[in-house]
Amino acid sequence: MTEIAIVGAGLIGRSWAMVFARAGLTVRAWDADPGVSARLGEDIATMIRDADGDPAIAGRISACATLAEALDGADWVQENGPENAEIKRALFAEMDRLAEPDTILASSSSALMPSVWSDGLAGAARCLVAHPVNPPHLVPIVELCPSPRTTPDVMDRAEALFRGVGQVPARLSREIDGFVLNRLQAVLLAESLSLVEQGVIDVQGLDDTIRHGLGRRWAFMGPMETILLNAPGGVPDYIRRYGPMLARLTDSAARGEAFTESAGQIVADAFPDFDIRARQDWRDRELAALDRHLRSRSERND
Amino acid sequence: MTEIAIVGAGLIGRSWAMVFARAGLTVRAWDADPGVSARLGEDIATMIRDADGDPAIAGRISACATLAEALDGADWVQENGPENAEIKRALFAEMDRLAEPDTILASSSSALMPSVWSDGLAGAARCLVAHPVNPPHLVPIVELCPSPRTTPDVMDRAEALFRGVGQVPARLSREIDGFVLNRLQAVLLAESLSLVEQGVIDVQGLDDTIRHGLGRRWAFMGPMETILLNAPGGVPDYIRRYGPMLARLTDSAARGEAFTESAGQIVADAFPDFDIRARQDWRDRELAALDRHLRSRSERND
Repeated sequence: MTEIAIVGAGLIGRSWAMVFARAGLTVRAWDADPGVSARLGEDIATMIRDADGDPAIAGRISACATLAEALDGADWVQENGPENAEIKRALFAEMDRLAEPDTILASSSSALMPSVWSDGLAGAARCLVAHPVNPPHLVPIVELCPSPRTTPDVMDRAEALFRGVGQVPARLSREIDGFVLNRLQAVLLAESLSLVEQGVIDVQGLDDTIRHGLGRRWAFMGPMETILLNAPGGVPDYIRRYGPMLARLTDSAARGEAFTESAGQIVADAFPDFDIRARQDWRDRELAALDRHLRSRSERND
Repeated sequence: MTEIAIVGAGLIGRSWAMVFARAGLTVRAWDADPGVSARLGEDIATMIRDADGDPAIAGRISACATLAEALDGADWVQENGPENAEIKRALFAEMDRLAEPDTILASSSSALMPSVWSDGLAGAARCLVAHPVNPPHLVPIVELCPSPRTTPDVMDRAEALFRGVGQVPARLSREIDGFVLNRLQAVLLAESLSLVEQGVIDVQGLDDTIRHGLGRRWAFMGPMETILLNAPGGVPDYIRRYGPMLARLTDSAARGEAFTESAGQIVADAFPDFDIRARQDWRDRELAALDRHLRSRSERND
């Protein structure tokens, strides 16, 4: 695949444009808001500068005046519209009508399973979710989630595309609410908010426990390999030894009721005078630096 | 505090010796197994070499023939014995008898709350858990958990000690099963094992979702700050918008029944021909490299 259409060129769409264009692919972007399209060139230039990217990347990205123009000749469409089932269904119906029969239609949705917006489309078999972590040009994971109608061939082509452009596709066998990443994030957030709201630990201490503890391993090694390395007697033996304790902790952990506005207020109060925009820029610089670090390590050994 | 006693000088005890000695403190170590004490010098030398540490560190660590000798003049005792309530209770009773009245007695226990082994001791007020992630000389977090009898002054001194030697103390206000870190790890492991056992994703894909996704942020930023940066309308607004979805995902997540031997077998099967010892060495090299990376970033901005 060499021709990419980006539909919705805000924060996530622009970052996707960067992912594909820096890998040498041609990107045509469209946004329902003409103001977003007008600013695209400038926004891309800023992103390339911040990421120390090759200025030539910008030459492979162009803004289109219409959806049809963006989709013309595209092998892959990456949609980044609002998380609204009605809007997405209408948009995918339109794209299914406009796109060539072989074009794959993917949504960046983090919340809507593909069946929700693709059921009933003539081209439902070529629709899937390709869910990134924001911003995808700095975080390589992309969850590939099929609907019951998505064909294995479409999934294979999706996986090959993302591997080819240097992302890390994680392929789901079937659709599930929240996909994988947000299911994992949700249980951790629930227990975090609960511990903070109970006053067991303060917000800073909670964040430090991940940032200077669990996150140190999870930056280069998943939780399954973490278990394996702590199981000299094998993983089933590990489960026999530690399973009862882990089960007890899980059974006593918070559930959905942990997501209270009062817990949210405790988090907010822990960051007074917080400059969210400056800190977002800091986060993106740190993500870029960490990505460079991990790639340089991975070239050495893995 | 300048004099540290290490009780139990295996993997964790040795790593603690390194933490304190590299900060300039004097360390006396004792182990119930004379073979461990006999190998200590060599093991410390290897650890210093692997971590590119100053060879002078070794000169501040000595092995003692008796528990009494290790505790003589110690300001702080860091115990690393077996996770067995009876053994720990007997050991702390003995240490409480031997140690000077002002000496603080800390356990590295990951599983036993401090009241379990300190209740009834004359010196219960000076006992706490100081729980590390293994190995502490490469991962800075240390959870400080008091029993209901531990005094705030002891907690203050514990926090000051760990901050002083460059670790990151996370202070709990009261004891709770699993402390904080393992409660967070348990819920994430339960949902991970469940998704793998259900066949939603394979083990590699699950690990990639953390390693190349969530872990990229959690290496330098906790989950509470992560929420804050995704909440332009403020955290309570974020909870109003996304709380219902996160609650739904949490309520449908796996609980303790996820820790099955069959799930363990699936994990084991995903790593055929796995050289656990070589991979543990790899993990420690990566932890050391990541620690250097994060410290160099943190000197720049934070």
